[in-house]
Amino acid sequence: MESSFSEITAQLRDKLAEIDDIQAAAAVLGWDMTTYMPPGGSAARGRQLATLARLAHERATDPALGKTLDAAESRFEAEIGTTIAAAADNDDAALLRLVRREYERRIRIPSKFAAEAADHSTRSYGVWATARGENDFAAVQPYLEKTLDLSRRYADFFDTYVHPADVFIDDSDFGLSVELIRPLFAELGAGLKPLVQRIAAQPKPRHEFLHRHYPEAQQIAFGDKIARRLGYDFTRGRQDKTHHPFMTKFSHGDVRITTRVNEQDIGDNTFSVMHEVGHALYEQGVAEKYESTPLNGGTSNGVHESQSRLWENLVGRSRGFWQHSFGDLQAAFPDQLRDVSAEEFYRAINLVEPSLIRTDADEVTYNLHVIIRFELECRLLEGDLAIEDLPAAWHDAYEDALGVRAPSDVDGVLQDVHWYAGFIGGSFQGYALGNIISCQVYETALEENPNITTHVQRGELMPLLHWLQNNIYRHGSKYTTQQLLERVTGSGITLAPYFRYLHEKFGDLYELDNLTGT
Amino acid sequence: MESSFSEITAQLRDKLAEIDDIQAAAAVLGWDMTTYMPPGGSAARGRQLATLARLAHERATDPALGKTLDAAESRFEAEIGTTIAAAADNDDAALLRLVRREYERRIRIPSKFAAEAADHSTRSYGVWATARGENDFAAVQPYLEKTLDLSRRYADFFDTYVHPADVFIDDSDFGLSVELIRPLFAELGAGLKPLVQRIAAQPKPRHEFLHRHYPEAQQIAFGDKIARRLGYDFTRGRQDKTHHPFMTKFSHGDVRITTRVNEQDIGDNTFSVMHEVGHALYEQGVAEKYESTPLNGGTSNGVHESQSRLWENLVGRSRGFWQHSFGDLQAAFPDQLRDVSAEEFYRAINLVEPSLIRTDADEVTYNLHVIIRFELECRLLEGDLAIEDLPAAWHDAYEDALGVRAPSDVDGVLQDVHWYAGFIGGSFQGYALGNIISCQVYETALEENPNITTHVQRGELMPLLHWLQNNIYRHGSKYTTQQLLERVTGSGITLAPYFRYLHEKFGDLYELDNLTGT
Repeated sequence: MESSFSEITAQLRDKLAEIDDIQAAAAVLGWDMTTYMPPGGSAARGRQLATLARLAHERATDPALGKTLDAAESRFEAEIGTTIAAAADNDDAALLRLVRREYERRIRIPSKFAAEAADHSTRSYGVWATARGENDFAAVQPYLEKTLDLSRRYADFFDTYVHPADVFIDDSDFGLSVELIRPLFAELGAGLKPLVQRIAAQPKPRHEFLHRHYPEAQQIAFGDKIARRLGYDFTRGRQDKTHHPFMTKFSHGDVRITTRVNEQDIGDNTFSVMHEVGHALYEQGVAEKYESTPLNGGTSNGVHESQSRLWENLVGRSRGFWQHSFGDLQAAFPDQLRDVSAEEFYRAINLVEPSLIRTDADEVTYNLHVIIRFELECRLLEGDLAIEDLPAAWHDAYEDALGVRAPSDVDGVLQDVHWYAGFIGGSFQGYALGNIISCQVYETALEENPNITTHVQRGELMPLLHWLQNNIYRHGSKYTTQQLLERVTGSGITLAPYFRYLHEKFGDLYELDNLTGT
Repeated sequence: MESSFSEITAQLRDKLAEIDDIQAAAAVLGWDMTTYMPPGGSAARGRQLATLARLAHERATDPALGKTLDAAESRFEAEIGTTIAAAADNDDAALLRLVRREYERRIRIPSKFAAEAADHSTRSYGVWATARGENDFAAVQPYLEKTLDLSRRYADFFDTYVHPADVFIDDSDFGLSVELIRPLFAELGAGLKPLVQRIAAQPKPRHEFLHRHYPEAQQIAFGDKIARRLGYDFTRGRQDKTHHPFMTKFSHGDVRITTRVNEQDIGDNTFSVMHEVGHALYEQGVAEKYESTPLNGGTSNGVHESQSRLWENLVGRSRGFWQHSFGDLQAAFPDQLRDVSAEEFYRAINLVEPSLIRTDADEVTYNLHVIIRFELECRLLEGDLAIEDLPAAWHDAYEDALGVRAPSDVDGVLQDVHWYAGFIGGSFQGYALGNIISCQVYETALEENPNITTHVQRGELMPLLHWLQNNIYRHGSKYTTQQLLERVTGSGITLAPYFRYLHEKFGDLYELDNLTGT
């Protein structure tokens, strides 16, 4: 007798749960590696993580999984009477779509190639870590050339792409493509450059007080307070210190964040906490029913980054938020902030200044850093740019976009880890998409619930959180980026809300007139 | 062409390394669960650990492992020209012996039975955790009855035992048996009871200062200092806080300990640190060549406990150790210890007093607690004692051995977790064997290197550590308990050094004459 859909999906869910358990275990080992592991643990930890990755990969590419998936798909269509593609709002269909998508991607990559790429990536990372300290691009050049070659070969396993970068974009921001992003970024750059130039001509706000001495313990305590205010649930998470802050999820009930503290910069920890809390609120808000399946996580890099940026920037760098919270900050650091008003603090944390380092960039210039990288990735993959010419192309692009030129490759092409620890392609667009999407989402939230602004001014973030949970977080990966945006905002990715936001906020801050259009 | 021994052992080692990686991952998840996991993580963590346990068990009982083992054994004997059993000092033979032993044990247990037992154990633990708080033995009685039934059924999978407890003793202290332990414990009890009575008739040393207020941060800092002095390598380990202290190993380079702090008892953390450091020194000292195999760990519960007790008691509660270290303790707690001398401190931490709780017991009475439990386990398995009569039997045994009677079962049969979270059998003897073995080993160390006593008085613990590393730690699980003791001390388990130690130390402390014989 043929099995029913519910019997087959139960089998499928068992297989998915096993993969999820192994991946969660690997995530715990990864978290421990960066938080508490003693140095002696490194070698064995690498072996342990490799074993867990292999076990998960074997299961995720197991032909038996494919057969169960086939059976589930055919029973779904027979019993429900509609195609899986058409059943947009059905949870089972969403699960089958996602599992099919991931399965098809994974089985296309021969394990020999995957091993070669993983091995190369480990070596390349090691060489970069040294070369960066010595400003030695020549040392990494042959590794980057091999990375580019591996990236092209990876893309070639997928015969349907229009642009090789599409393969990588699909991995991180499914459904988007170079064809969609390139014109979007062209328009974005065209709108940002004159804005940056006009702001650069204006006087800078005072901001020296951000760099007074802020002791670590009080910073951590204040960060915890802010995390709680934003709605981060510490009964289902915790915060630890790492060299690079991140968010990691082991289960619905265990979503952790990390931070780092710079005692000479109150902004470093404060905004890092809000950023990671933004990621964590998304993951803590995914409906529990998706636990142990691939639906149990944010849907794409772009949407994920939209939430970290919404909380970090649209809330965390707003005048309204600090109208309420500056008193708390001042209470935590009375000596450091005695001579500073809430308005001065607000102006200081929104200083706009063209700079060399992406991760330190302000809200206005940040996306220009991303556009530069996206264009370079595309040109490298197209064969229009050689690795040996990359450092010069980098410097020229910065000169053109931001009017700055790094004195060396350390603050140029050697600054980001991405190309040295993975493929070239699809690495950066999510950061800019996140900024754009955050404004689309926030504008809609304010339209539907205009009181949110007043709530934020009172330090009440729960109305905003509940709106986001209800409209975005609870859906996990049920919808793609574009589907989700259509549902929430009524349109796909669009720049208008982002420019409206920048023009209103920075027009006010820097007293600029006649900021219109994108 | 037939594979060579080295080819086959390479295959075998790959299989063992995979199991080791999975078990290490589970250990990391277990450590995280008790140290840092937020409460929301519990449910998923249980699932993740169950999946890892299943993956490890599948591999450890895989017939393919058995075939590789068969082939390795036959190639060993063909190439080396001796039987595996006879090649006592050969590392490969030791590995094959151990893997064979563990494989044969595991494949005897049907997975249906293992699942039933694991499920029962989880439920039983939960019921106990509540019942203990409510002094409700009746609530756990049916669970204990089922545990006893499961324990008998477990033993029956092994057709060769003399006493059913032997099966469990083999699990924790391979090679020992009821036949060996029962007369040993009879002699032990007969020697301890009069000693306890004679000490009880003497005046007690002052010890109220142990219970002044000792703030947590300073206790942790002092514990770290002591751990370093004992030779614990923090580059290959770390210390965290848990409800119950333990030691756990993820690899040769990552051996962690935990502790707990009672601000009203300086002894709690101090001696717990030394105890767990003792376990950790053993594990940190195992030769790195055994990494990723079952040889990479202490050889038995008894020998492991001998090392925790050696460092905690023979070193940590010695007059010599505190001659040097009391100054540091006084410097850390000047107000609390201003009116206390090193000699007074030494006497206070060696207070002997019959009590109800095993884990709080002093060096002299401790083994009586263990003997009581061992005898009860044997009688339960024999059918000589029914679970319903266990609470009364417990109280009677305490009255007889220690002259104390618990006012309720909370401080009686409900006090230890062991029977409520596992089988009945083999749970306790290792604690007493550890005390006995620690004295055999330490006496030999002092014979071979009489300067150790002077070194300890100067706070120099490295000569002792090096002797232990060389004679015991580096061997990991290469030798069984009895083989190791024969090698190191020239005899099997024997009580004489233990009684010599007690008589000398406590005869001096309590001014007792005519302490002779066992």
